[in-house]
Amino acid sequence: MQRYFLNISYDGTNYHGWQIQENANTVQTEVEKALSTILRTPTPVHGSGRTDTGVHAIEQVAHLDVNLNFPLEDLPFKLNGVLPDDIVINNARAVKPEAHARFDAIRRSYQYKIHQKRNPFKGGQSYFYSRVVDVEKMNEATELLIGEQDFQSFSKVKTEVNNFICTIEKAEWISENDSLTFHVTANRFLRGMIRALVGTLLEVGIGRMTKDEFSEIIKGKDRRLAGRAVPPEGLYLSAVKYPEEIYLD
Amino acid sequence: MQRYFLNISYDGTNYHGWQIQENANTVQTEVEKALSTILRTPTPVHGSGRTDTGVHAIEQVAHLDVNLNFPLEDLPFKLNGVLPDDIVINNARAVKPEAHARFDAIRRSYQYKIHQKRNPFKGGQSYFYSRVVDVEKMNEATELLIGEQDFQSFSKVKTEVNNFICTIEKAEWISENDSLTFHVTANRFLRGMIRALVGTLLEVGIGRMTKDEFSEIIKGKDRRLAGRAVPPEGLYLSAVKYPEEIYLD
Repeated sequence: MQRYFLNISYDGTNYHGWQIQENANTVQTEVEKALSTILRTPTPVHGSGRTDTGVHAIEQVAHLDVNLNFPLEDLPFKLNGVLPDDIVINNARAVKPEAHARFDAIRRSYQYKIHQKRNPFKGGQSYFYSRVVDVEKMNEATELLIGEQDFQSFSKVKTEVNNFICTIEKAEWISENDSLTFHVTANRFLRGMIRALVGTLLEVGIGRMTKDEFSEIIKGKDRRLAGRAVPPEGLYLSAVKYPEEIYLD
Repeated sequence: MQRYFLNISYDGTNYHGWQIQENANTVQTEVEKALSTILRTPTPVHGSGRTDTGVHAIEQVAHLDVNLNFPLEDLPFKLNGVLPDDIVINNARAVKPEAHARFDAIRRSYQYKIHQKRNPFKGGQSYFYSRVVDVEKMNEATELLIGEQDFQSFSKVKTEVNNFICTIEKAEWISENDSLTFHVTANRFLRGMIRALVGTLLEVGIGRMTKDEFSEIIKGKDRRLAGRAVPPEGLYLSAVKYPEEIYLD
């Protein structure tokens, strides 16, 4: 058996998230089904982390153990041939036998996409928010996120986790024409964290909250202080980073 | 009563085309329903032309006659508030009482979008075609389309029309990264014409047909000579042009 990392993109609109569930269609279900078809044996995969219903991935990573009787380059091609069009395998790489898609990830990046002018072609793939926002003010507040901090104020209340410390390396809003994208990279994220951050930063953008008030919310460590979460359709897992030494190629 | 032109964008994925039909949801049905809701009276609209099931519009135009009891600028805003997210009214302009969205159009432009690398986010909005194509060769053949010609070879066989003469002003393939877009502008188009043209030009692109053979197909005036039509999801009505003098603003 050899371990591989699959690099996967998907439009999450029609799925109940990444993770396998009974009686609900998920991305993981589809990927495992495709693998079983191609490899003719049940083949579980382990993702780098969950994505919620309606959330997308430009780059999700999952590992699996298989014996291939064809060249590795053919695996993405064969899988894409049987997968639905909204899930695409970008590549497959051989990794060390102990490499783990979830536990070895050192950094994850997300994007949250907003369009400010109505656009019929962005359905399910971006959040429509038409209020005028001050992007400079939003970026000033966003800078407060950088570093190692307790982000309990932006965590889902019902969660098994009791460590709310995350190290945010990068967080920035980029405005282009009628689009606005929040880029964020951290060692880990809490459940619902990015959607709560974006919802709260939009309140800064429309002038309903100051940078100082945003700072107080972080310090308060109480989810009730933060703004409303924005919907899942704008959220994209965009990169998962591993140490180079786990790859065999 | 005052006549207005509505400028409309839509994602056609979920509609049986533009034109009203019984027992099928169409874009025109939705627009008239929204108008009736806002204006509280049944309000028919007349489009610049049909689009088929699954075909999109970056810019479709339709005229209507109404008495507005609020500013014209509010009409798009009010309509967008009740329309589904995949239909957007971009603007409304007052026109002369005899102006007609279909008969006064002097020029129509379409785009046909192709993506050559699998992309889960382009579902329904672009045609996935992975074979390597020679865009230069396609553009050499495409130049033969320019001018006033009989395009019967690219018309649907079952059609009420018996005039197949169209004047193509502009036709060009533009290649960018993994995308390929066919841009075409003419005074009129025949049913199924662009999808048949694109399908045939792709055969030139993959080397299965020469420029001379393409020329013979145009001259042959027989639909059986041309290539297979590509699917509707890549097709966009992108502009409808009228003489400036029909506008009152």
